[in-house]
Amino acid sequence: MPSVSQNLSAAMSETANAVVDALERLLPKSEFPENKLFQAMRYGALNGGKRLRPFLVMTSARIFGVSDACALRTAAAVECVHCYSLVHDDLPAMDNSDLRRGKPTVHKQYDEATAVLAGDALLTIAFEILADPRTHEDPAVRCRLVSALAKASGANGMVGGQMLDLIAETTQLDIGAITRLQRMKTGELIAVSTEAGAILGKASQQHMGALRAYAHDLGLAFQIIDDLLDAEGNEAETGKPVGRDAVAGKATFVTILGAERARSQAVLLSEQAIGHLSVFDGRAKNLEEVARFVVDRKN
Amino acid sequence: MPSVSQNLSAAMSETANAVVDALERLLPKSEFPENKLFQAMRYGALNGGKRLRPFLVMTSARIFGVSDACALRTAAAVECVHCYSLVHDDLPAMDNSDLRRGKPTVHKQYDEATAVLAGDALLTIAFEILADPRTHEDPAVRCRLVSALAKASGANGMVGGQMLDLIAETTQLDIGAITRLQRMKTGELIAVSTEAGAILGKASQQHMGALRAYAHDLGLAFQIIDDLLDAEGNEAETGKPVGRDAVAGKATFVTILGAERARSQAVLLSEQAIGHLSVFDGRAKNLEEVARFVVDRKN
Repeated sequence: MPSVSQNLSAAMSETANAVVDALERLLPKSEFPENKLFQAMRYGALNGGKRLRPFLVMTSARIFGVSDACALRTAAAVECVHCYSLVHDDLPAMDNSDLRRGKPTVHKQYDEATAVLAGDALLTIAFEILADPRTHEDPAVRCRLVSALAKASGANGMVGGQMLDLIAETTQLDIGAITRLQRMKTGELIAVSTEAGAILGKASQQHMGALRAYAHDLGLAFQIIDDLLDAEGNEAETGKPVGRDAVAGKATFVTILGAERARSQAVLLSEQAIGHLSVFDGRAKNLEEVARFVVDRKN
Repeated sequence: MPSVSQNLSAAMSETANAVVDALERLLPKSEFPENKLFQAMRYGALNGGKRLRPFLVMTSARIFGVSDACALRTAAAVECVHCYSLVHDDLPAMDNSDLRRGKPTVHKQYDEATAVLAGDALLTIAFEILADPRTHEDPAVRCRLVSALAKASGANGMVGGQMLDLIAETTQLDIGAITRLQRMKTGELIAVSTEAGAILGKASQQHMGALRAYAHDLGLAFQIIDDLLDAEGNEAETGKPVGRDAVAGKATFVTILGAERARSQAVLLSEQAIGHLSVFDGRAKNLEEVARFVVDRKN
């Protein structure tokens, strides 16, 4: 098994803190404590978590000499989209989850209408952040970021994947369909996070392609481990209910391949992801470590 | 009473048809008839309606010599945001409406999860459309469009207004609070529609300011008439349930001012809106007519 270095843990915590600070500044505040919408947006976005996607943005941006200060707004925007998707996915009509990272989900803490609106507002502010001149001086770069994030998170990306995931609850999918589903549901946002750093750094097509290939393998490995944690993890460690896929009789990488083969597959994908980084001649060490971390994580 | 010219009706129908064509092209299609998400997006967006916001985009763009071909994508993007807001507002946890323009609402026609996701995807595609080079050759213009639309529709705009509207169901608001609520809930999107044409045409600050002042008065007049139609209209004419505000005991312009004074106020706002257009020396005739139409409409 690959093991995760202390360097990476420290770097991820540092980025997570910086992103939380950025979100604190960027999300709307109100002098009225009764403003439930702003509160719910903050509750949904400032809820801990690994902040993997922002870390990918920042780490990929550094390869191209982009400063952290510059990449941080983009990282925060991507995280807003990720958090909105969690808020909506947890809704009663969707996954109907009461817990997220050990705390009540947004519709449990507030109410369903507020959760729908807070998700909508988190999605919207992501694009507001990206289009702002403070995100990058070049408007062409900002437009590419908006475009890439919208594509990755829309009907042919994350939202489409969530739709397929709901259909999967009543239809038996084969391994090809599940791979496609997961590529859309989690893979595209992980891919655009990695790509965003390259967009900010105006990377070459070759470098962009390498990062995209890396991110696709990474995203799939990430999802297989997610399925494994649902099948084998415990609620205290993962901070969310486990065993739900089995109860729902839902086909996942684990139910189809078995735990053993699923884990080998994730490790293989992780190694393959690292292979794509060879074009960077060692300048992408942190991304290599992320690929190891993703298959090694416990939550 | 001001009356609406046949010219305006014809121009509005023409734009509505062009926007429907554009949406047909821009919204995702699938070869799989079972793709509920794409279907629900189309159902929610291609549902008739006056297409007032696209008409404002196109009409305002024409003042600055912007071609219809160029303005159409922006008009379609604004309409995607409007339609997403209707899909989410109709949800059981929100306004719980079964009918919209005489047809089942999206969650009635499909299901609640699909309606949440279709709304999310319509919001997302709006920004994808705006950031695309085909919308305007200048990326700075595209960024301004994204930024303006995100601000108008986010937590300090439309979504924030919908939140206040839900709070209004259990709290008695005064006329000031209702004005603020409506300015956010419907006014901001009407304002950004008018502004978008000016952004496309790189209008001067003076012209931009005049259009913004026009649109704010127009938006408020529009909402007062909406309240009047709810209080006095009938379902056959308006295509949606009426009398809901009274049943909910909700404060509106009509419950506070009475029907008579509410109508005078709308007419006054409409005239004031037209007054702001004087800087255009007669080049904004269609916008003047829109202001008359808005207080004269029956649905």
